[in-house]
Amino acid sequence: MNFKIRPIGYVRSPYEEMKDAPLQGRLSQTVSEIVIGEQHTPGFDDVETKSHLIILSWSDRADRTMHRATPPHDMIEHGVFATRSPNRPSPIALSVVDLLRRKGNVLRICGLEALEGTPVVDI
Amino acid sequence: MNFKIRPIGYVRSPYEEMKDAPLQGRLSQTVSEIVIGEQHTPGFDDVETKSHLIILSWSDRADRTMHRATPPHDMIEHGVFATRSPNRPSPIALSVVDLLRRKGNVLRICGLEALEGTPVVDI
Repeated sequence: MNFKIRPIGYVRSPYEEMKDAPLQGRLSQTVSEIVIGEQHTPGFDDVETKSHLIILSWSDRADRTMHRATPPHDMIEHGVFATRSPNRPSPIALSVVDLLRRKGNVLRICGLEALEGTPVVDI
Repeated sequence: MNFKIRPIGYVRSPYEEMKDAPLQGRLSQTVSEIVIGEQHTPGFDDVETKSHLIILSWSDRADRTMHRATPPHDMIEHGVFATRSPNRPSPIALSVVDLLRRKGNVLRICGLEALEGTPVVDI
């Protein structure tokens, strides 16, 4: 059984490639934006009242065949489900970010490690 | 642009229907299980070393056309992206659970509000 996900928006980020992004976006001060599709505007009322958001994005440049990963903090190979590796069967990235501002369909946020153009799945 | 998600496993839970599940699964003592597909076994090495897991599941009984929700704690209608409502365009549920035990391809956990048979997308 498969599910189809349609993104609700996408990321505008200064990170163009994997090598540009920090290992822990939460600890960075980099400002990104999330641009929301017009059809989802009614879902965004009151998002601007939050100080933090949980962002689920789709790591579209991930290798979905990987079941093993070697995190940089211990350099030991583990099963991917015991790690934060983006290379995994369903590459949904979870990020907690600071909401700086909402302007119409654009959320300005801090602390997201997602690359430029990354699809956003849920907030 | 759409993405296809294949679940990595499914939930065994005493909650059969929406009305059975608590509003905040994290606060309940209910024990559930996650059964992992055999092909994903290599991804599970070392999961048993964790005290807590983040579970992403797919709320397959959700209404994906909803952009508004009225949470029980304030009874005011909000945009869904400012709420935890399961009824949303991409109904991915985020849960933090206690890992009680791993036995082969079965994880015994506490604090999950997902219903019986709910597909698990990522851990």
